Amino acid sequence: MARLLYDLAAAEPERRFSPYCWRTKMALLHKHLPFDTTPWRFTDKEVIAFSGQKRVPVLVDGDHVVFDSWTIATYLEDSYPDRPSLFGGDGGRAAARFVNAWADGVLVAGIARLIAADIFANIDAKDRAYFRRSREERFGMSLEKLAADRETKVVDFRKNLDPLRAVLAVQTYLGGTNPAYVDYIVFGCFQWARCISRFPLLLENDPIGAWRDRLLSAFDGFAGAAPAYPA
Amino acid sequence: MARLLYDLAAAEPERRFSPYCWRTKMALLHKHLPFDTTPWRFTDKEVIAFSGQKRVPVLVDGDHVVFDSWTIATYLEDSYPDRPSLFGGDGGRAAARFVNAWADGVLVAGIARLIAADIFANIDAKDRAYFRRSREERFGMSLEKLAADRETKVVDFRKNLDPLRAVLAVQTYLGGTNPAYVDYIVFGCFQWARCISRFPLLLENDPIGAWRDRLLSAFDGFAGAAPAYPA
Repeated sequence: MARLLYDLAAAEPERRFSPYCWRTKMALLHKHLPFDTTPWRFTDKEVIAFSGQKRVPVLVDGDHVVFDSWTIATYLEDSYPDRPSLFGGDGGRAAARFVNAWADGVLVAGIARLIAADIFANIDAKDRAYFRRSREERFGMSLEKLAADRETKVVDFRKNLDPLRAVLAVQTYLGGTNPAYVDYIVFGCFQWARCISRFPLLLENDPIGAWRDRLLSAFDGFAGAAPAYPA
Repeated sequence: MARLLYDLAAAEPERRFSPYCWRTKMALLHKHLPFDTTPWRFTDKEVIAFSGQKRVPVLVDGDHVVFDSWTIATYLEDSYPDRPSLFGGDGGRAAARFVNAWADGVLVAGIARLIAADIFANIDAKDRAYFRRSREERFGMSLEKLAADRETKVVDFRKNLDPLRAVLAVQTYLGGTNPAYVDYIVFGCFQWARCISRFPLLLENDPIGAWRDRLLSAFDGFAGAAPAYPA
């Protein structure tokens, strides 16, 4: 049976920008598991109702329906143990949870503030009212006010990336000499921004940029070939 | 040959408070490697000159002299592969570097501001001028001013711990079902504060406190029995 991923899309169906869906796509590529994707919009709740919840990524793998990027990663690792490991052992899996929690709290939340207005501008018309309402409620201010503030906010955001820089000063990848799921966790966040926004998250000479470029080139340049606004 | 650790001490020789030395002591215990410690003060630079640098931990393991807590951890893992693993595989080792970088940047730097005045009050008289000068230069303000500000600063500090809480909501230890070096990295920071300061870093019902208590009880209660100011 086909392997199908429900993948968050902008108005342009090929502009795929969810940080969580990017984690899953990179994990599938890492495992050498072929997959198709179908564009999904924020308000297409009924389309994935079969999964029992309302968010993507949703992966249909034969008879298995799996959702939530972390759950999908562990599902892939356990279901395809003969393929390249995503975690590099039990210690890697346990520690990757910390990277996942840090990325969700610091990167996803930090980047969301910086690019929310650009997401709004790119998404399908039918998603706009939902997106504006839910994000303005979350951040307690209008999308326009969020955007006006971003040149100051990005300074703190960049400082919060110091642990990444410290690791990348001594390792080629967060996973060591080769990329692993910890890389995809973080990469998904930067790829999210890159696919939907022209706002430069990183200064030009930031070593995180060089690491991101290596992952854009990985798997025959899969992520690099995706519709984006290359900063 | 004996295994000896140079271990940062306060005026009371048994009050050992370095976060980095605590990481090393927990790693040695995890590996079931017996060791002795000798109290070392900030200004005892000549005592460890044989190591070619000026900071503790310094571990003398037979013919090997190893310094820097991360280097010591990898040295122990590689030199004693038949003992319980500190990292749980290569993926765990690579990802632990991120935890180490995060802990050094967010925890050590954050806690240092909160407890610097207490460290000053506890250390040996001969260390005080050095400590005051170097810390006031680092933080750009007097130790007294740092302390006056801490009730506000600790609010942000506690918020920065959210990734730990997210992991401990689903895992008993950062290392998974059992403690690993990632736990000792973070634990060392809290034990540092606990050994030298009465300032409560955590609110009473914080799940990080319960995790810390589990590590205080580990290895027959080694860390729990150390001279401290139990909050």
